[in-house]
Amino acid sequence: MAEVEVARTGRRGRGGGGAARRAERTAVKIDAAKYIERNIPNFEILTPEAIEVIEANAETVLEEIGVAFVENPEALKLWKDAGADVRGERVHIPRGLARKLCATAPSRFTQHARNPERNVEIGGKSLVLAPVYGPPFVRDANGGRRYATMDDFRNFVKLGYMSKWLHHSGGTVCEPTDVPVNKRHLDMLHAHMTLSDKPFMGSVTEPSRAQDSVEMCEILFGGLDGRTVMTSLININSPLTFDATMMGALKVYAEANQACIISPFIVGGAMAPVSVAGTLTQVLAEVLAGVAYSQLLNPGAPVIFGAFVTSIDMNSGAPTFGTPEASQILYGAGQLARRLGLPFRSGGGLCGSKLPDAQAAYESANTLNAALMGGVNFMLHACGWLEGGLVASYEKFVMDADQLGALHKLAAGVAYDEPAQAMDAIREVGPGGHFLGCAHTQAHFKDAFWRTNLFDYRPFETWDEDGGRDTQALASARVAKLLADYQQPALDPEIAGALRAYIDEKKASTADSFI
Amino acid sequence: MAEVEVARTGRRGRGGGGAARRAERTAVKIDAAKYIERNIPNFEILTPEAIEVIEANAETVLEEIGVAFVENPEALKLWKDAGADVRGERVHIPRGLARKLCATAPSRFTQHARNPERNVEIGGKSLVLAPVYGPPFVRDANGGRRYATMDDFRNFVKLGYMSKWLHHSGGTVCEPTDVPVNKRHLDMLHAHMTLSDKPFMGSVTEPSRAQDSVEMCEILFGGLDGRTVMTSLININSPLTFDATMMGALKVYAEANQACIISPFIVGGAMAPVSVAGTLTQVLAEVLAGVAYSQLLNPGAPVIFGAFVTSIDMNSGAPTFGTPEASQILYGAGQLARRLGLPFRSGGGLCGSKLPDAQAAYESANTLNAALMGGVNFMLHACGWLEGGLVASYEKFVMDADQLGALHKLAAGVAYDEPAQAMDAIREVGPGGHFLGCAHTQAHFKDAFWRTNLFDYRPFETWDEDGGRDTQALASARVAKLLADYQQPALDPEIAGALRAYIDEKKASTADSFI
Repeated sequence: MAEVEVARTGRRGRGGGGAARRAERTAVKIDAAKYIERNIPNFEILTPEAIEVIEANAETVLEEIGVAFVENPEALKLWKDAGADVRGERVHIPRGLARKLCATAPSRFTQHARNPERNVEIGGKSLVLAPVYGPPFVRDANGGRRYATMDDFRNFVKLGYMSKWLHHSGGTVCEPTDVPVNKRHLDMLHAHMTLSDKPFMGSVTEPSRAQDSVEMCEILFGGLDGRTVMTSLININSPLTFDATMMGALKVYAEANQACIISPFIVGGAMAPVSVAGTLTQVLAEVLAGVAYSQLLNPGAPVIFGAFVTSIDMNSGAPTFGTPEASQILYGAGQLARRLGLPFRSGGGLCGSKLPDAQAAYESANTLNAALMGGVNFMLHACGWLEGGLVASYEKFVMDADQLGALHKLAAGVAYDEPAQAMDAIREVGPGGHFLGCAHTQAHFKDAFWRTNLFDYRPFETWDEDGGRDTQALASARVAKLLADYQQPALDPEIAGALRAYIDEKKASTADSFI
Repeated sequence: MAEVEVARTGRRGRGGGGAARRAERTAVKIDAAKYIERNIPNFEILTPEAIEVIEANAETVLEEIGVAFVENPEALKLWKDAGADVRGERVHIPRGLARKLCATAPSRFTQHARNPERNVEIGGKSLVLAPVYGPPFVRDANGGRRYATMDDFRNFVKLGYMSKWLHHSGGTVCEPTDVPVNKRHLDMLHAHMTLSDKPFMGSVTEPSRAQDSVEMCEILFGGLDGRTVMTSLININSPLTFDATMMGALKVYAEANQACIISPFIVGGAMAPVSVAGTLTQVLAEVLAGVAYSQLLNPGAPVIFGAFVTSIDMNSGAPTFGTPEASQILYGAGQLARRLGLPFRSGGGLCGSKLPDAQAAYESANTLNAALMGGVNFMLHACGWLEGGLVASYEKFVMDADQLGALHKLAAGVAYDEPAQAMDAIREVGPGGHFLGCAHTQAHFKDAFWRTNLFDYRPFETWDEDGGRDTQALASARVAKLLADYQQPALDPEIAGALRAYIDEKKASTADSFI
């Protein structure tokens, strides 16, 4: 396992014999990859004419149909003052106004982590990978499918911390259903802050919980000084509806200069039309309105153009993932986001399968590839997603996380400097020879190829004698190994104590609620 | 199963009562998709500068190092007459000569099938999908891994015929190890010719067997009249070596105007350098030499720029599939092929896994996606490939074949005509509504989304009560259903008899050989 190096450190000279042996400890060095900086082009599926039509139609939607800001008089006033035509809760936005308001949003921003080495850049050619978000259930090969608990949550944060190719600790990696709804955000944030040193997301389920998230970050970072330290997920109630809870959380974050993903959540055919161009039109209209609103709240607040779009299976009514229509929408939305100069969020290891089997892998690989090629800057659900997002899967987490390494390599592009040209090797070997022993191979083989930490490449006989395990079984073993090797990153005890005190006080001041 | 419609045809009016019922028959209508015509751009990973370097280096390889045409005095004479510097078996090709000779090869050609509706266009924006080629073993969930037989071969031809998204019947879909080596090509061709009406490949294991293939096609097609009716696979012994057997088969086919894929067969790190640019240089040099030779044999003979390139796992020495380096090489080779104006072959559902599990699916999906995006025109191994090509898997065949449908939809691009814009739907539904019942959805939902014939989208509870089957189990059931539904396409009895007689005579005239 390349990314986890276990070094036994003998503290010789400090004590003799048994004491020295007792003092021996295992130091685990965590290898974490830098966020991806693409050195490959983006795949652009929309022609300039198609873009023009979709952009014009989105303006028509905003002006003629408008968007609803529900139970939110403050938002309506902001829109009216900005020049929108507000009728009841419906905001009709004159052509061009939303796009103009979006212009103050940065095209790229830094999200800080408590370990500065884990800071990520979001926007431009970068790609930041974050784990699954939101499942109420978990699954593993031994325990099957069950409600997620806070113990599961901590395990997934640990797995994320131990995963070299994951840049971000994420947010609700699973819903800890054993903790009261009105308090679980405190425990979740505490886990991200103390069990990992990677960047994370804040709570969005109530504006007050967003405020708690900001306050906990102020403790963790010793004051924010304008730094962006959270990227949180603001879903739009598609079609064209912005609810008060999400907009309240957005307000808290935008005013604190914390980043939000403004994300239509669409099952195509149900929350949007059954066509790709129609869905893209609606996505663009919704994001324009949402991002414009964020800039009304605080011009310059960092935001991400989100697009979580899948399609519906017309037989079962279930959402589907890894489909060609989803890929087309992803590619198109990426183009629309870049035209707006905004960072783009989509994709992940999305699948509909109930098991981490071949269906799950085909669907997830389709989405992961599209997200890389389509210019995604922030990929939520990059690993661990199962069963349409109802389940966080332990095995799928490490399966996907392994594939994320392949994305890094693919994104690096093709070098063609003199060593990469390898003319000396072709000359040395000549017709009919082989390259295994040549000087060029000896010099470069170690870094030449991406290496899996999971898949089995052994000959059939060796593999068969060793139990003939499938990918799920290999993944179970890897999960166990990562959790066993896990060591908590150091945190200033004063900060740790202050966080604990904040949470204890918050919890003591309110009754538990499970709804 | 959308692609198989079983219609009961009552022959009323021709006889009464029991006779009519006895005359009732089940007619299976096979739905076969047309080859893909891409309406999306190609993904181009190489910069113009990188292409320039690689093309210049390939010319250097041909001129300075040269290529070996082994035990083939006729080839050496052709090369000498064309202006090459021939020293022993080594052919040094002056800069620009090979590229010039390649210019007579067509950029696009038609491969005819005995059913003209199954003709395929190879080149340009087209993509033709053909099944796995070459495995000595087969695997299914019930029987496990075992040597392939002629019965297996026939089953795979039947599955290919029944697979809507497969345009081509392929060649050695598995090696029928129970038939003598020197006679099995006859039975294999007979299976393709009689059990399917899709286009197929000819034998390349001996020039005489290529000749038999041409003669059997003359019987099947009632004379060829210059038509191309086979596309056969000519592998190059990388690095830079052209053996007499393959070149002999190429000669037979080129002179009969039958198409060949001229394909370096490379495990990177063993048969080529450990770098992408170096491997692309060698691939280009080899294809330039091979295609040029085909044009020396018969200017205008149809050929395909092949690139079967994988990389080596430096731990086990095993070839790996679905890796980022393989994708990069595929993308780059596609660009080089288009610069030469040649049809391009690469990709397929390639994987290293021993089972049709998640590893197999990740690896295969990576390759399938890269092949679509990279502009492949002829995709061999599109379905059924397992364990690095050692195994033809029944279950994997139908898994991959299902994904090929998704490729068709993705390749169609994004429509933006008025129905696709769906503005009427967005207007009708408005903020907070849903699209399931709207007029636009009712009019378009049937064709809106790609539909799987394999994956399970049902809710967890329904799926669980029904046995909680994984993808392999679903695929086993689909294999059984397709084979049970199979009906042989009609063939003129005279032609069938003549083919049988040809094979019987050939078999009787030679002793069996198993080596």
